[in-house]
Amino acid sequence: MFTLVGIGLGDASDITMKGMNAVKEADIVFLEAYTSFLINNNAEELAGIYGKPVIIADREMVESGVVLDNAKVKKVVLLVVGDVFGATTHSDLIVRCNEQGIESKVVHNASIINAVGCCGLQLYRFGQVISLCFWTETWRPDSWYERLRSNRAAGIHTLVLLDIKVKEISDENLARGRKIYEPPRYMSIKQAVEQILEVEGYKQGGAVAADGSTFAVGVARVGSASQQVVAGTMKDLLSVDFGAPLHSLVIAGDVHECELEHVNLFWMTKQ
Amino acid sequence: MFTLVGIGLGDASDITMKGMNAVKEADIVFLEAYTSFLINNNAEELAGIYGKPVIIADREMVESGVVLDNAKVKKVVLLVVGDVFGATTHSDLIVRCNEQGIESKVVHNASIINAVGCCGLQLYRFGQVISLCFWTETWRPDSWYERLRSNRAAGIHTLVLLDIKVKEISDENLARGRKIYEPPRYMSIKQAVEQILEVEGYKQGGAVAADGSTFAVGVARVGSASQQVVAGTMKDLLSVDFGAPLHSLVIAGDVHECELEHVNLFWMTKQ
Repeated sequence: MFTLVGIGLGDASDITMKGMNAVKEADIVFLEAYTSFLINNNAEELAGIYGKPVIIADREMVESGVVLDNAKVKKVVLLVVGDVFGATTHSDLIVRCNEQGIESKVVHNASIINAVGCCGLQLYRFGQVISLCFWTETWRPDSWYERLRSNRAAGIHTLVLLDIKVKEISDENLARGRKIYEPPRYMSIKQAVEQILEVEGYKQGGAVAADGSTFAVGVARVGSASQQVVAGTMKDLLSVDFGAPLHSLVIAGDVHECELEHVNLFWMTKQ
Repeated sequence: MFTLVGIGLGDASDITMKGMNAVKEADIVFLEAYTSFLINNNAEELAGIYGKPVIIADREMVESGVVLDNAKVKKVVLLVVGDVFGATTHSDLIVRCNEQGIESKVVHNASIINAVGCCGLQLYRFGQVISLCFWTETWRPDSWYERLRSNRAAGIHTLVLLDIKVKEISDENLARGRKIYEPPRYMSIKQAVEQILEVEGYKQGGAVAADGSTFAVGVARVGSASQQVVAGTMKDLLSVDFGAPLHSLVIAGDVHECELEHVNLFWMTKQ
């Protein structure tokens, strides 16, 4: 039996009662720790709260089949930060359960995709999500630009998800066969705004105003006690200290009157 | 103190530990019962599980200010099915708390907007959500058509939310000043497909194939034990009995290979 349990965004208490029941009944509990991370608790703290060991499952462990091999004979829970279907890798696990005749279940939870509603812009007025990656000298993906331009042209908002690099190996170490992991990196709202403005600078498609005057909302640590939401122009947001990860960004489309009242609570000059 | 608590989609056990703590500490607990409904439990059952009374709050009660008047002097929790910012009315409560100097908090949970990932199509490939309403003889809104057409032209998926009519008064009773409520109505996937094909029939904009051959996924009671997911052409879905509410529909855009494996689990001919 394999159960994917979303544990939400903030801390250990964001698990649902249903999720907690699955953890209590489980023989083995893994925590997926490469597509996101829980803001205010680590695996040891979760283990303390759940009263049983929580094993960190990195990409290698999940993709090698260790998790599902266990699920053939035991009750296995895989904890996933946010909701369970935020990353392709989790869908893949459900498909493989089906192929291998392993019973599977899902316990949903909040995801940044819905919790971003806390910024005051209405969820039904968001277009397709985009994701920014850390650029390297040789790899500077900007294929998200057209989606941002399209959303903005339609007057709708864009949730921008920011890169997380966990357990990455540098090109140099990879070339030398050294399994040395780089420190984790989390893209900041400032880095995201800079990257978007740089791409606008050379694409000149008008996805956002090149001078940074487009309205945006930065959200940090959504769902946790230290949640921070600041609205302002993209340029304004460059100077805001959003603190510890995770950060996300919303590039606003047209802001309706009913949204304005709510988003105004977070207007930069009021901070 | 005012706390908006999302209670998720399935049953009483979908509340988070954080949400349950807020309920335990609350002086008064309301259940918002006009923008959605919890699939497998009613207010009395929630009260039994929470160990304290749960008061049904209809639109009149929320909008009249009764809820927030209490929050000025007491710890008030308003339970909301799904996540808290799915409906404008909840954003409005947070704005009013701010105006009236009432401290407010939010406890997030799953929403159909992220839980629909269970259908196998990837969340980052969804465009703007659309909502269908029950038509009357004189009111047949179809402004969603252009958004559906735009999503489909971009090759992305569209989550279609279906109308809920709770505590509605018929035009006749309204005209006669009689406060008699109609039985609740929940739009079915069949009704939604019929409405979309009817609008395609007279708009002829190619948002979907007029013959009903566009690929779609129907999802019913997402997050509950009786969840049902069926994929097929729109025409195929007309003949599927999806059972009790709530129903939602996904009109697929281009389906990527990694999505296909997952969504194939729900293919109609396999049911």
